[in-house]
Amino acid sequence: MSKLDEIGIKIVSEPQETGQSGNAVAILYELAEMLDELIEKGESGAIDLQGIPLTPGDYELLREVLAEGEVHATIDAIGPTEVRETMFPGVWWITHYNVEGDIMADVIEVGFVPEILQSHPDDVSESSERLKAYLQEAAAINN
Amino acid sequence: MSKLDEIGIKIVSEPQETGQSGNAVAILYELAEMLDELIEKGESGAIDLQGIPLTPGDYELLREVLAEGEVHATIDAIGPTEVRETMFPGVWWITHYNVEGDIMADVIEVGFVPEILQSHPDDVSESSERLKAYLQEAAAINN
Repeated sequence: MSKLDEIGIKIVSEPQETGQSGNAVAILYELAEMLDELIEKGESGAIDLQGIPLTPGDYELLREVLAEGEVHATIDAIGPTEVRETMFPGVWWITHYNVEGDIMADVIEVGFVPEILQSHPDDVSESSERLKAYLQEAAAINN
Repeated sequence: MSKLDEIGIKIVSEPQETGQSGNAVAILYELAEMLDELIEKGESGAIDLQGIPLTPGDYELLREVLAEGEVHATIDAIGPTEVRETMFPGVWWITHYNVEGDIMADVIEVGFVPEILQSHPDDVSESSERLKAYLQEAAAINN
Protein backbone atom coordinates (compact mmCIF):
# COMPACT_ATOMS: atom_id res chain seq x y z
CA MET A 1 0.00 0.00 0.00
CA SER A 2 2.47 2.63 0.95
CA LYS A 3 4.70 4.23 -1.61
CA LEU A 4 7.24 5.41 0.96
CA ASP A 5 10.19 3.62 -0.55
CA GLU A 6 9.73 5.41 -3.84
CA ILE A 7 9.86 8.92 -2.44
CA GLY A 8 13.30 10.54 -2.24
CA ILE A 9 12.99 11.44 1.41
CA LYS A 10 15.18 14.19 2.78
CA ILE A 11 16.17 14.02 6.43
CA VAL A 12 14.84 17.13 8.11
CA SER A 13 18.09 18.79 9.21
CA GLU A 14 17.73 22.39 8.17
CA PRO A 15 14.35 23.30 6.74
CA GLN A 16 14.57 26.22 4.34
CA GLU A 17 13.28 29.58 5.69
CA THR A 18 9.84 28.41 4.55
CA GLY A 19 10.00 25.81 7.30
CA GLN A 20 9.77 23.19 4.58
CA SER A 21 12.02 20.19 4.33
CA GLY A 22 11.36 19.48 0.66
CA ASN A 23 9.53 16.28 1.56
CA ALA A 24 6.16 17.84 0.74
CA VAL A 25 7.33 18.64 -2.79
CA ALA A 26 8.65 15.06 -3.08
CA ILE A 27 5.21 13.80 -2.09
CA LEU A 28 3.53 16.01 -4.70
CA TYR A 29 5.82 14.59 -7.41
CA GLU A 30 4.96 11.08 -6.20
CA LEU A 31 1.21 11.89 -6.31
CA ALA A 32 1.56 13.06 -9.92
CA GLU A 33 3.16 9.70 -10.79
CA MET A 34 0.48 7.79 -8.87
CA LEU A 35 -2.24 9.67 -10.80
CA ASP A 36 -0.64 8.51 -14.06
CA GLU A 37 -0.53 4.90 -12.77
CA LEU A 38 -4.21 5.17 -11.87
CA ILE A 39 -5.08 6.45 -15.34
CA GLU A 40 -2.83 4.04 -17.25
CA LYS A 41 -3.17 0.86 -15.16
CA GLY A 42 -6.12 1.53 -12.87
CA GLU A 43 -3.79 1.02 -9.93
CA SER A 44 -4.56 2.92 -6.74
CA GLY A 45 -2.06 3.59 -3.97
CA ALA A 46 -1.50 5.55 -0.79
CA ILE A 47 1.17 7.54 1.02
CA ASP A 48 1.31 7.29 4.81
CA LEU A 49 2.18 10.82 5.92
CA GLN A 50 3.13 9.63 9.38
CA GLY A 51 5.88 7.51 7.84
CA ILE A 52 7.63 10.59 6.43
CA PRO A 53 9.40 13.33 8.42
CA LEU A 54 7.24 16.35 7.68
CA THR A 55 7.57 19.80 9.22
CA PRO A 56 4.55 22.01 9.94
CA GLY A 57 5.65 23.97 6.86
CA ASP A 58 5.47 20.78 4.77
CA TYR A 59 1.95 20.06 6.01
CA GLU A 60 0.94 23.62 5.26
CA LEU A 61 2.23 23.35 1.68
CA LEU A 62 0.38 20.07 1.15
CA ARG A 63 -2.88 21.51 2.48
CA GLU A 64 -2.46 24.67 0.41
CA VAL A 65 -1.66 22.89 -2.85
CA LEU A 66 -4.07 19.97 -2.49
CA ALA A 67 -6.81 22.12 -0.93
CA GLU A 68 -10.34 20.73 -0.96
CA GLY A 69 -12.63 19.32 -3.63
CA GLU A 70 -16.37 18.64 -3.72
CA VAL A 71 -16.58 15.44 -1.65
CA HIS A 72 -16.31 15.33 2.13
CA ALA A 73 -17.19 12.18 4.03
CA THR A 74 -17.06 10.88 7.57
CA ILE A 75 -17.05 7.28 8.63
CA ASP A 76 -18.11 6.50 12.18
CA ALA A 77 -16.44 3.23 13.01
CA ILE A 78 -14.06 2.79 15.97
CA GLY A 79 -13.30 6.49 16.14
CA PRO A 80 -14.22 8.76 13.24
CA THR A 81 -12.45 8.85 9.90
CA GLU A 82 -12.52 11.91 7.72
CA VAL A 83 -12.22 11.61 3.93
CA ARG A 84 -11.64 14.74 1.91
CA GLU A 85 -11.41 14.79 -1.85
CA THR A 86 -8.67 17.27 -2.67
CA MET A 87 -8.76 19.86 -5.44
CA PHE A 88 -7.27 17.09 -7.59
CA PRO A 89 -9.99 14.48 -8.28
CA GLY A 90 -8.48 11.07 -7.60
CA VAL A 91 -6.38 12.39 -4.71
CA TRP A 92 -8.00 11.91 -1.30
CA TRP A 93 -6.80 13.01 2.13
CA ILE A 94 -7.90 10.50 4.77
CA THR A 95 -7.46 11.08 8.49
CA HIS A 96 -8.31 8.47 11.12
CA TYR A 97 -8.96 9.68 14.67
CA ASN A 98 -9.36 7.73 17.87
CA VAL A 99 -12.32 8.40 20.13
CA GLU A 100 -10.28 11.09 21.92
CA GLY A 101 -9.77 12.92 18.62
CA ASP A 102 -6.06 12.14 18.29
CA ILE A 103 -4.83 11.48 14.76
CA MET A 104 -4.15 7.76 14.47
CA ALA A 105 -3.34 7.74 10.76
CA ASP A 106 -3.00 10.41 8.06
CA VAL A 107 -2.93 9.07 4.52
CA ILE A 108 -3.14 10.52 1.04
CA GLU A 109 -4.78 7.94 -1.20
CA VAL A 110 -4.85 8.01 -5.00
CA GLY A 111 -7.79 6.13 -6.48
CA PHE A 112 -11.18 6.65 -8.15
CA VAL A 113 -12.72 6.27 -4.71
CA PRO A 114 -11.12 5.50 -1.34
CA GLU A 115 -11.39 1.88 -0.25
CA ILE A 116 -12.86 2.93 3.09
CA LEU A 117 -15.96 4.34 1.37
CA GLN A 118 -16.67 1.09 -0.46
CA SER A 119 -19.02 -1.56 0.93
CA HIS A 120 -17.26 -4.91 1.36
CA PRO A 121 -18.90 -7.76 -0.63
CA ASP A 122 -19.28 -9.85 2.54
CA ASP A 123 -21.15 -7.00 4.21
CA VAL A 124 -23.39 -6.66 1.15
CA SER A 125 -24.24 -10.38 1.32
CA GLU A 126 -25.07 -9.99 4.97
CA SER A 127 -27.26 -6.98 4.10
CA SER A 128 -29.29 -9.09 1.71
CA GLU A 129 -29.86 -11.78 4.34
CA ARG A 130 -30.81 -9.26 7.02
CA LEU A 131 -33.23 -7.41 4.74
CA LYS A 132 -34.91 -10.63 3.65
CA ALA A 133 -35.19 -11.76 7.28
CA TYR A 134 -36.84 -8.44 8.17
CA LEU A 135 -39.31 -8.75 5.28
CA GLN A 136 -40.22 -12.34 6.19
CA GLU A 137 -40.84 -11.30 9.77
CA ALA A 138 -42.91 -8.27 8.70
CA ALA A 139 -44.95 -10.44 6.31
CA ALA A 140 -45.59 -13.02 9.08
CA ILE A 141 -46.80 -10.29 11.45
CA ASN A 142 -49.13 -8.77 8.84
CA ASN A 143 -50.77 -12.08 7.88
CA MET B 1 -30.91 3.32 -14.02
CA SER B 2 -34.30 3.33 -12.38
CA LYS B 3 -35.98 0.13 -11.38
CA LEU B 4 -39.46 1.68 -11.26
CA ASP B 5 -41.03 -0.64 -13.78
CA GLU B 6 -40.12 -3.68 -11.71
CA ILE B 7 -41.83 -2.54 -8.53
CA GLY B 8 -45.47 -3.57 -8.11
CA ILE B 9 -46.70 -0.06 -7.40
CA LYS B 10 -49.97 0.39 -5.59
CA ILE B 11 -51.93 3.54 -6.31
CA VAL B 12 -52.27 5.42 -3.05
CA SER B 13 -56.06 5.37 -2.58
CA GLU B 14 -56.56 4.32 0.98
CA PRO B 15 -53.40 4.01 3.04
CA GLN B 16 -53.79 1.55 5.92
CA GLU B 17 -54.13 3.15 9.39
CA THR B 18 -50.33 3.17 9.48
CA GLY B 19 -50.50 5.83 6.77
CA GLN B 20 -48.60 3.44 4.54
CA SER B 21 -49.56 2.61 1.00
CA GLY B 22 -47.55 -0.61 0.81
CA ASN B 23 -45.17 0.96 -1.71
CA ALA B 24 -42.41 1.23 0.88
CA VAL B 25 -42.56 -2.52 1.50
CA ALA B 26 -42.50 -3.08 -2.27
CA ILE B 27 -39.35 -0.95 -2.44
CA LEU B 28 -37.72 -2.98 0.35
CA TYR B 29 -38.43 -6.21 -1.54
CA GLU B 30 -36.92 -4.63 -4.67
CA LEU B 31 -33.83 -3.55 -2.71
CA ALA B 32 -33.33 -7.12 -1.47
CA GLU B 33 -33.38 -8.33 -5.09
CA MET B 34 -31.02 -5.56 -6.17
CA LEU B 35 -28.58 -6.57 -3.41
CA ASP B 36 -28.58 -10.11 -4.81
CA GLU B 37 -27.92 -8.78 -8.33
CA LEU B 38 -25.03 -6.73 -6.96
CA ILE B 39 -23.56 -9.80 -5.25
CA GLU B 40 -24.16 -12.21 -8.13
CA LYS B 41 -23.52 -9.99 -11.16
CA GLY B 42 -21.83 -6.90 -9.72
CA GLU B 43 -24.70 -4.86 -11.14
CA SER B 44 -25.63 -1.68 -9.30
CA GLY B 45 -28.97 0.09 -9.65
CA ALA B 46 -31.13 2.83 -8.19
CA ILE B 47 -34.74 3.59 -7.29
CA ASP B 48 -35.99 7.13 -7.80
CA LEU B 49 -38.26 7.73 -4.82
CA GLN B 50 -39.84 10.75 -6.46
CA GLY B 51 -41.09 8.47 -9.24
CA ILE B 52 -43.21 6.45 -6.82
CA PRO B 53 -46.32 7.64 -4.92
CA LEU B 54 -45.14 7.49 -1.31
CA THR B 55 -47.04 8.68 1.73
CA PRO B 56 -45.29 10.25 4.73
CA GLY B 57 -45.91 6.91 6.43
CA ASP B 58 -44.06 5.13 3.62
CA TYR B 59 -41.10 7.47 3.97
CA GLU B 60 -41.10 6.94 7.73
CA LEU B 61 -41.00 3.16 7.27
CA LEU B 62 -38.13 3.40 4.80
CA ARG B 63 -36.13 5.65 7.13
CA GLU B 64 -36.84 3.43 10.11
CA VAL B 65 -35.93 0.15 8.39
CA LEU B 66 -32.96 1.42 6.37
CA ALA B 67 -31.73 3.69 9.17
CA GLU B 68 -28.11 4.87 9.00
CA GLY B 69 -24.76 3.14 8.58
CA GLU B 70 -21.19 4.31 9.11
CA VAL B 71 -20.63 6.47 6.03
CA HIS B 72 -22.05 9.96 5.60
CA ALA B 73 -20.86 12.18 2.76
CA THR B 74 -21.68 15.54 1.27
CA ILE B 75 -20.85 16.69 -2.21
CA ASP B 76 -20.79 20.43 -2.82
CA ALA B 77 -21.50 20.81 -6.50
CA ILE B 78 -24.43 22.86 -7.87
CA GLY B 79 -26.36 22.61 -4.61
CA PRO B 80 -25.34 20.07 -1.99
CA THR B 81 -25.88 16.34 -2.27
CA GLU B 82 -26.10 14.15 0.79
CA VAL B 83 -25.05 10.51 0.65
CA ARG B 84 -25.92 8.25 3.57
CA GLU B 85 -24.95 4.63 3.77
CA THR B 86 -27.92 2.86 5.31
CA MET B 87 -27.79 0.15 7.96
CA PHE B 88 -27.52 -2.25 5.00
CA PRO B 89 -24.04 -1.88 3.46
CA GLY B 90 -24.48 -1.59 -0.30
CA VAL B 91 -27.72 0.42 0.08
CA TRP B 92 -27.23 4.19 -0.07
CA TRP B 93 -29.75 6.98 0.37
CA ILE B 94 -28.81 9.95 -1.84
CA THR B 95 -30.58 13.28 -1.67
CA HIS B 96 -29.83 16.16 -4.03
CA TYR B 97 -30.78 19.67 -2.91
CA ASN B 98 -30.82 22.92 -4.83
CA VAL B 99 -29.13 25.98 -3.40
CA GLU B 100 -32.38 26.90 -1.63
CA GLY B 101 -32.38 23.52 0.15
CA ASP B 102 -35.33 22.05 -1.74
CA ILE B 103 -35.07 18.34 -2.54
CA MET B 104 -34.39 18.01 -6.26
CA ALA B 105 -33.92 14.24 -6.28
CA ASP B 106 -34.21 11.48 -3.70
CA VAL B 107 -32.71 8.16 -4.75
CA ILE B 108 -31.86 4.88 -3.09
CA GLU B 109 -28.85 3.41 -4.86
CA VAL B 110 -27.58 -0.16 -4.53
CA GLY B 111 -23.88 -0.52 -5.26
CA PHE B 112 -20.49 -1.02 -3.58
CA VAL B 113 -20.10 2.74 -3.67
CA PRO B 114 -22.36 5.44 -5.12
CA GLU B 115 -21.29 6.73 -8.53
CA ILE B 116 -21.39 10.32 -7.30
CA LEU B 117 -18.55 9.62 -4.84
CA GLN B 118 -16.27 8.28 -7.58
CA SER B 119 -13.76 10.49 -9.43
CA HIS B 120 -14.37 10.46 -13.16
CA PRO B 121 -11.36 9.22 -15.22
CA ASP B 122 -11.35 12.45 -17.28
CA ASP B 123 -11.16 14.49 -14.08
CA VAL B 124 -8.29 12.31 -12.84
CA SER B 125 -6.38 12.91 -16.09
CA GLU B 126 -6.94 16.62 -15.69
CA SER B 127 -5.70 16.37 -12.08
CA SER B 128 -2.42 14.86 -13.28
CA GLU B 129 -1.89 17.65 -15.80
CA ARG B 130 -2.71 20.39 -13.31
CA LEU B 131 -0.44 18.92 -10.62
CA LYS B 132 2.46 18.57 -13.05
CA ALA B 133 1.91 22.15 -14.25
CA TYR B 134 2.02 23.36 -10.64
CA LEU B 135 5.24 21.43 -9.96
CA GLN B 136 6.93 22.74 -13.11
CA GLU B 137 6.01 26.28 -12.16
CA ALA B 138 7.20 25.81 -8.57
CA ALA B 139 10.49 24.30 -9.81
CA ALA B 140 11.01 27.23 -12.20
CA ILE B 141 10.45 29.73 -9.41
CA ASN B 142 12.88 27.95 -7.05
CA ASN B 143 15.70 27.71 -9.58
